[in-house]
Amino acid sequence: MVDGEPGKPVQVGILGFGNVGSGTFATLQENAANIARRAGGPVVVRRIADVDWRRPRPLGVDVPADVRTRDPYAVINDPEIAIVVECIGGVTPARELVLAALRAGQNVVTSNKELIAKHGHELLDEADARGLDIAFEGSVGGGIPVLRPLKESLAGDSIHTVIGIVNGTTNYILTQMTARGRDYAEVLAEAQQHGYAEADPTSDIEGYDATYKLAILASIAFSSRVRLEEIYREGIGRVTAADIGYAGQLGYVVKLLAIARDTPEGLELRVHPAFLPITHPLAAVSDVFNAIFVEGSSVGEVMFYGRGAGARPTGSAMAGDIVEVARNIRHGCTGRVPCTCFYDKPVRPMEDIETKHYFRTRVADRPGVLARMAAVFGEEQVSIASLLQTSAAAEEAEIVWITHRTREGGMRRALDRIARLPEVMEVCSWIRVEA
Amino acid sequence: MVDGEPGKPVQVGILGFGNVGSGTFATLQENAANIARRAGGPVVVRRIADVDWRRPRPLGVDVPADVRTRDPYAVINDPEIAIVVECIGGVTPARELVLAALRAGQNVVTSNKELIAKHGHELLDEADARGLDIAFEGSVGGGIPVLRPLKESLAGDSIHTVIGIVNGTTNYILTQMTARGRDYAEVLAEAQQHGYAEADPTSDIEGYDATYKLAILASIAFSSRVRLEEIYREGIGRVTAADIGYAGQLGYVVKLLAIARDTPEGLELRVHPAFLPITHPLAAVSDVFNAIFVEGSSVGEVMFYGRGAGARPTGSAMAGDIVEVARNIRHGCTGRVPCTCFYDKPVRPMEDIETKHYFRTRVADRPGVLARMAAVFGEEQVSIASLLQTSAAAEEAEIVWITHRTREGGMRRALDRIARLPEVMEVCSWIRVEA
Repeated sequence: MVDGEPGKPVQVGILGFGNVGSGTFATLQENAANIARRAGGPVVVRRIADVDWRRPRPLGVDVPADVRTRDPYAVINDPEIAIVVECIGGVTPARELVLAALRAGQNVVTSNKELIAKHGHELLDEADARGLDIAFEGSVGGGIPVLRPLKESLAGDSIHTVIGIVNGTTNYILTQMTARGRDYAEVLAEAQQHGYAEADPTSDIEGYDATYKLAILASIAFSSRVRLEEIYREGIGRVTAADIGYAGQLGYVVKLLAIARDTPEGLELRVHPAFLPITHPLAAVSDVFNAIFVEGSSVGEVMFYGRGAGARPTGSAMAGDIVEVARNIRHGCTGRVPCTCFYDKPVRPMEDIETKHYFRTRVADRPGVLARMAAVFGEEQVSIASLLQTSAAAEEAEIVWITHRTREGGMRRALDRIARLPEVMEVCSWIRVEA
Repeated sequence: MVDGEPGKPVQVGILGFGNVGSGTFATLQENAANIARRAGGPVVVRRIADVDWRRPRPLGVDVPADVRTRDPYAVINDPEIAIVVECIGGVTPARELVLAALRAGQNVVTSNKELIAKHGHELLDEADARGLDIAFEGSVGGGIPVLRPLKESLAGDSIHTVIGIVNGTTNYILTQMTARGRDYAEVLAEAQQHGYAEADPTSDIEGYDATYKLAILASIAFSSRVRLEEIYREGIGRVTAADIGYAGQLGYVVKLLAIARDTPEGLELRVHPAFLPITHPLAAVSDVFNAIFVEGSSVGEVMFYGRGAGARPTGSAMAGDIVEVARNIRHGCTGRVPCTCFYDKPVRPMEDIETKHYFRTRVADRPGVLARMAAVFGEEQVSIASLLQTSAAAEEAEIVWITHRTREGGMRRALDRIARLPEVMEVCSWIRVEA
């Protein structure tokens, strides 16, 4: 480890030089003078390891030949390098390289949400045991400062709710569907053309990316280890232009939300599309922007907003983490803020969770249909808050329902039973409503 | 100073036990178990000094007799107390007590915006010289984490713009004027009845409170010492219901903004009412809520939102600062993040600053009036972007103007000249427009 002598450079090594690596390097270079002042001495990028130095870099940054290497262990085995910046992404080989760096006594900075969500426990324990820092602000919300504020600024409070719009691709798609009344598949194809969605968009649109981020947010907010498999997950693939239209009529917008609550009955952990009242601070978060809404017992409501992805914003988060680690190195206090997952709180099963619900049915336009449906809802303890009936076609009616707060289990049973009624042609959609 | 032994309590003393003191104490008590875990050992309030122990406390908190004292020096001279929490407010005697605490080797936490804005230089230098912490997150935006994120999370970036809605009273008044079409005096009287405005509301409505917060924000964001007297200041007293009505018609809301920009020509520093496009993230910030919008060269746009005042939210910020200082004490690294005002950047004179402008004139409804006004604007380099003429009364017309970006100096000269034209009965209002 580098000593804390004032003025002595802190040496940094970067693993992986794609989008995030380039953004981090560019940010460190451009702000070098300010960073040196803030960190108490220069922060110097000594080596960058990448498997392919011929592919073009997004920001056109120029890396001197003696800084380039193809061997990640040229970074990890360099005793001068005090901070290893992991920009590879994914679990393999990132996990093994980060562990090797920690075992070599190097601090780690990363924005790898999948790695932290899946192996944070192991990595943070390794860092804590050695009194090292592992910082990962960029793993949630790109450049938005949110993890450090949760872990440090709100450390004196009790956070009970976190609701995030944490995936830019799905938020862009839903925003475009809302603004232009278009359907999902059409907007997705366009987003792919514009580079706002990956060629294989599964991780984004199926909500996997959002579960990684929710696991990290909830672990920090509630001081409890959250496992990915404990998070209920549903993507945006079944949201239609019609549902978004009804949402607008009823005073809501449709967003893919990552929701975590710390309740006396256990943690609520879920990622799914939801109706959100137009007056909610998150409702105005559009396009590729992200925001994380937090409620604490003393602080009340706070929200963090900004660009949730991209080489530059993520580079800003990485550079901020690097300066913080450099400050700790100079003051001999790496490991100052260790893992704060002191608890292992139980997670509530999804069927016990209460929300309002929106759903839409296509039924035969005959007397008595509504009565039969209402009877089923009554038997399953589903209380209807409002109802909107329109004519879909000849001898057909479309009914849009909003319930009062209802347990998920009862709602599922009611919808199953409704779908089997002979007069009900289709339960077209079902989306939870967040208060 | 207390040693960094794990598990040993960190002793805290509180000076002043009004709103903020009670909120801080209540937050520390309620979250004691989590705080002990996060800080690495218990945080114990050992003494609280207040001049009057008989007045009722807002949160009804109960303070044991042996914790109470009327003598602030019973806190400052207690060698067991490692963190002094200043909750007195104002400059006298807070400044002298904070200096005494620092000189006694005690770390300081405060939310006193006036003290930090006016004497931060002196106090931070004193803390730095002794390797102590002075933390003041609660001084801006109540419980919203914003100063620590600016100083730490964004330390690797270059921030060039800060725009804040940082005063809850004026934002409440403007929100109510907008929602209900009422005039300023009426809404202010109501706000005073409801306790949202002080009996003497001068500091809020004249913008002094916002200048304190802008001085603190800009100093941290731009790493440059900002002096209060360098900030242009204008209150909300001249904003009328009519102006707010026109703003709505034109796609704007009226907000009291605290604006700071770091430009090649120097710093822009100003607090004044402004037209803000309805699509801006700050436009939806209503009632007593605050938000700070920040732009950095890598991170792009980020925003921090929440309750800007109140015993509880401010108590959350104070408790967070206390945990952070306690962590530093345990790791022997107080003073880890020193004052970062490395520069003394010049401040641009207000007359050089370019914005768009809205203004409203009452003129005689005669041929040639518009031509004479337009000639003056042309001579003063004021380019008109849009114009709306209505009939105010018989033989009178009201004209609403929006300019393109114009230097303040030229705008002032043009309005002075316009006001002296015989056909112009009144320049009713003039409000800057932020892009």
